[in-house]
Amino acid sequence: MQPAATTSKGAATRDSIIERAVQIVRKEGFEGLSIGTIAGSVGMSKSGVFAHFGSREELQLAVLDAAAQRFTEQVFLPAIREKRGLTRLLAIGSRWMKWLRSEQGGCPMVSAAIEYDDRPGAIRERVIFYQTRLRKELSRAIAMAVETKELRADTEPEQLAFEIFGVELAMHHDSRLFGFDEAIVRSERALQRLVDSYRAR
Amino acid sequence: MQPAATTSKGAATRDSIIERAVQIVRKEGFEGLSIGTIAGSVGMSKSGVFAHFGSREELQLAVLDAAAQRFTEQVFLPAIREKRGLTRLLAIGSRWMKWLRSEQGGCPMVSAAIEYDDRPGAIRERVIFYQTRLRKELSRAIAMAVETKELRADTEPEQLAFEIFGVELAMHHDSRLFGFDEAIVRSERALQRLVDSYRAR
Repeated sequence: MQPAATTSKGAATRDSIIERAVQIVRKEGFEGLSIGTIAGSVGMSKSGVFAHFGSREELQLAVLDAAAQRFTEQVFLPAIREKRGLTRLLAIGSRWMKWLRSEQGGCPMVSAAIEYDDRPGAIRERVIFYQTRLRKELSRAIAMAVETKELRADTEPEQLAFEIFGVELAMHHDSRLFGFDEAIVRSERALQRLVDSYRAR
Repeated sequence: MQPAATTSKGAATRDSIIERAVQIVRKEGFEGLSIGTIAGSVGMSKSGVFAHFGSREELQLAVLDAAAQRFTEQVFLPAIREKRGLTRLLAIGSRWMKWLRSEQGGCPMVSAAIEYDDRPGAIRERVIFYQTRLRKELSRAIAMAVETKELRADTEPEQLAFEIFGVELAMHHDSRLFGFDEAIVRSERALQRLVDSYRAR
């Protein structure tokens, strides 16, 4: 009869299932994730896992939500403490690159975009939701750097957001195949060059 | 006793297995491909498929080889007929974007890079081989545009190749999630802006 404690224990179990699920997704992709494999992996029964996640898809969506939350906490929230304008924009870009290092097995959102881009359904919709939100937040940071007159007045925020996104994707790709250290040098330089090409003179 | 005809028929069968395998990979990823599923799908016995591909991995590698060959034929070879320098470089970039449209279910090389970036083995090695070659060919086209004095003398070909690669990855990502028509407008503009920022004045 201690509902708070029960809830808190339940939440902790839920979190540890998600944490393990993230590790599986990084190795095997979202299709490699099942209630059965996760149950075996955390030492629970399948029905125990089902008590937390009603379906495999619900668990897959929880992995996406967790990745998006980590990204917000590690990239956007610290960057928002930086001075608005170019400083904040570059902080977002740079923290994003470093975040990719912390994602040891690759970013779950990038994996999901590849795995579900041609499979209509809840996972694809969730990826689109987060990617749209990310692009909007990035565009907003760019618009602020236009307001501060650091970027040119004719800068189209959505266009530059697309271009920054490309640099981050190339960073993700190269760091996974050719090594982080070489990739981050190229990416930092690419971001700097890109922003410079939009800079007000 | 007609070895030539047999070989030609054998090659045709092999090609049709690969073609079907490419379709499966686009839908299910490389991990979704098995000798069993492909046999059922082309109406052959498993041992019939094994006569052409000694293992699942061999079949997966053949899919990568086929994708690389299509890319060479549809992007690089036509572009090489263009005038060397900036014209050729932009032709490569632009044909690359359009090639992504023809890859209805997404580019197998991008999928493989995501699926195998943390799994050591023959597939990962093959992806690295092709990605290294692609980056070298792109760098060579850039170096020519420096020789023709269209791009600045201090242009670092590998850096610009990385940046162009980022635009193509963003094109791949956006066209799959948000639609080809919007993505190609952004990508064409991104490529043009990028190259302009390296242009000799």
